[in-house]
Amino acid sequence: METWKKNLREIEPYTPGDQPNKAGMIKINTNENPYPPAPGVLKAIKEFEPDKLRLYPNPESLPIVEALADFYGRKKEEVFVGVGSDDVLAIAYMALFNSDKPILFPDITYSFYDVWAKLFRVPYRQIPLDENFRIKKEDYYAENGGILLANPNAPTSISESLENIEDIIKNNRDSIVIIDEAYVDFGGNSVLPLIDRYDNLLVVQTFSKARSMAGMRVGYAIGNPVLIRAMNDVKYSFNSYTMNLPALTFAVEAVRDKTYFEDTIQKIIRTRSWVMDDLKKLGFSFPDSKANFLFVTHKCCPAKELYEAMKRENIFVRYFNKERINNYLRVSIGTDEEMKKVVVFLEEYLKENNYI
Amino acid sequence: METWKKNLREIEPYTPGDQPNKAGMIKINTNENPYPPAPGVLKAIKEFEPDKLRLYPNPESLPIVEALADFYGRKKEEVFVGVGSDDVLAIAYMALFNSDKPILFPDITYSFYDVWAKLFRVPYRQIPLDENFRIKKEDYYAENGGILLANPNAPTSISESLENIEDIIKNNRDSIVIIDEAYVDFGGNSVLPLIDRYDNLLVVQTFSKARSMAGMRVGYAIGNPVLIRAMNDVKYSFNSYTMNLPALTFAVEAVRDKTYFEDTIQKIIRTRSWVMDDLKKLGFSFPDSKANFLFVTHKCCPAKELYEAMKRENIFVRYFNKERINNYLRVSIGTDEEMKKVVVFLEEYLKENNYI
Repeated sequence: METWKKNLREIEPYTPGDQPNKAGMIKINTNENPYPPAPGVLKAIKEFEPDKLRLYPNPESLPIVEALADFYGRKKEEVFVGVGSDDVLAIAYMALFNSDKPILFPDITYSFYDVWAKLFRVPYRQIPLDENFRIKKEDYYAENGGILLANPNAPTSISESLENIEDIIKNNRDSIVIIDEAYVDFGGNSVLPLIDRYDNLLVVQTFSKARSMAGMRVGYAIGNPVLIRAMNDVKYSFNSYTMNLPALTFAVEAVRDKTYFEDTIQKIIRTRSWVMDDLKKLGFSFPDSKANFLFVTHKCCPAKELYEAMKRENIFVRYFNKERINNYLRVSIGTDEEMKKVVVFLEEYLKENNYI
Repeated sequence: METWKKNLREIEPYTPGDQPNKAGMIKINTNENPYPPAPGVLKAIKEFEPDKLRLYPNPESLPIVEALADFYGRKKEEVFVGVGSDDVLAIAYMALFNSDKPILFPDITYSFYDVWAKLFRVPYRQIPLDENFRIKKEDYYAENGGILLANPNAPTSISESLENIEDIIKNNRDSIVIIDEAYVDFGGNSVLPLIDRYDNLLVVQTFSKARSMAGMRVGYAIGNPVLIRAMNDVKYSFNSYTMNLPALTFAVEAVRDKTYFEDTIQKIIRTRSWVMDDLKKLGFSFPDSKANFLFVTHKCCPAKELYEAMKRENIFVRYFNKERINNYLRVSIGTDEEMKKVVVFLEEYLKENNYI
């Protein structure tokens, strides 16, 4: 081996999920929004002057920071913006998780949590969810270097009560608690109102789900100015200009249009509701979803078989080949038209193969 | 102090440079390109479909990777793309500089190099440039955990010969040598042709300078597939989707239009040439520039005084309040019109104040 290879970082490579791109496919595998971004985004694109691209963008991401501060009624010193919530959370690990004690998060949750812990060499402990995939709040009373919870959780779709989350925050005033609310807009309970009461609380959200902008890569955190400053110190030491001018210009429009935002969410919730009814009739069970996806298992048909059958039909859902959840599928909520086709296919498949 | 504050990362905060935004200003402080991006970019913006923003972008940044591989005649496994060359270099630190020995770079160079070393806890040693701001190649024969050189260097604008750079690479086959070529297109000597000969060489370039796209945040590295894979492993463990869809869609056009790229560079080189002549006549001296900026000092007038006088005129240049270079100004090359105004102002100011 060449000696220089000793200096390479050895890391278990994380493989990004499948992003198929087939004509006529039904892509319900990465919890994207089936509806386009707010109409203002189109207008902003049409008016965009390419000449401005020659200049560096605003290093403080002020257009988005201010739009978000305005939307949530916060000060701009309480808002951090990054390249998707992945960037925001990765910077939070570097900025806020500097303890010798392990950070705590559930065994079944967003699959990046342990990847970042390994990347940034942050000690961690994964705490098993109970048999119903619920968080047991008492598990988080243990000594720790920080706590990270997705609420609603992924891929389970379960939203924990505000009381339970507040209890965990309250019992951990000596460490920083991050609540990842990527899916909160679809019926979850946001802890945003609690940030005035708990200075150790950071709330992370995203433009990728309810705001239909996964392709724009914008995420944000809201918390007390000390936390936000610590994150900005790390961000500016990493890369001063992470948010490009199109992101700063177009994403703002998705925040300004509150009516479109709420209408889109309601459409997805309505679709989710009838899809849940139909899937129950077909023998599926799943936790009550407060997200834009369902976490389904069938009483007879193995999840892996179904995943592969759907894939052959160009219906892409997510299958996790992982202990405890390897008989489940994560199914994003698409349009009514897409979901009707999905239900029709599932009914046919299950009948043809004598599963129902 | 609240206990949770002990878990905050303590880091000397890096303050991003001044980005003034005044009507009629001459902004020659951040080495931006005075000309707009290639015309194809405008076309790509006009044709952009906002609906596509609802989907995650290509995690491998394939459109840009393939365009660059094509432009430079490399394989796509040899190309890494990031959010500006700052992102590329930061990931290179994490992926390629994992030694207990210090990495080496000059004392006067891009100001992020020591910031990243501190952020990622990489040991480093800054090696003084000689009295003419030149690299002494023998200094880089010392044991090290990696080498990082900007060529042309910033803020000096000096391009070292290919022979000297190759000598350093050749004498360091046991560690990884990164050449940061952000400014190479303006007359420097690229080591890109050497990557077939040296598997420990990584070349970093950017869309921010010669390609007029500082606002788009696109940088890239070219090197052997082992280095590129190590960087991608880290990148995917940090954030799978860093390049947003507008970057993937618009930036490609800046690579495809080779004629526009070369014409823009020639315009800047021509302007640089007459500005150098005029400034010499006014009593300035500076190294021979192979970049889109000059590093100037005046025989009588202190740099700081001049910096402030220019600022009052809405002419923004860069002043570094740093040992060895605190009597220099870094002056980006603007349009002919802008630079004429700058020269006229300097002549008037120096005469009025009896400096010439």
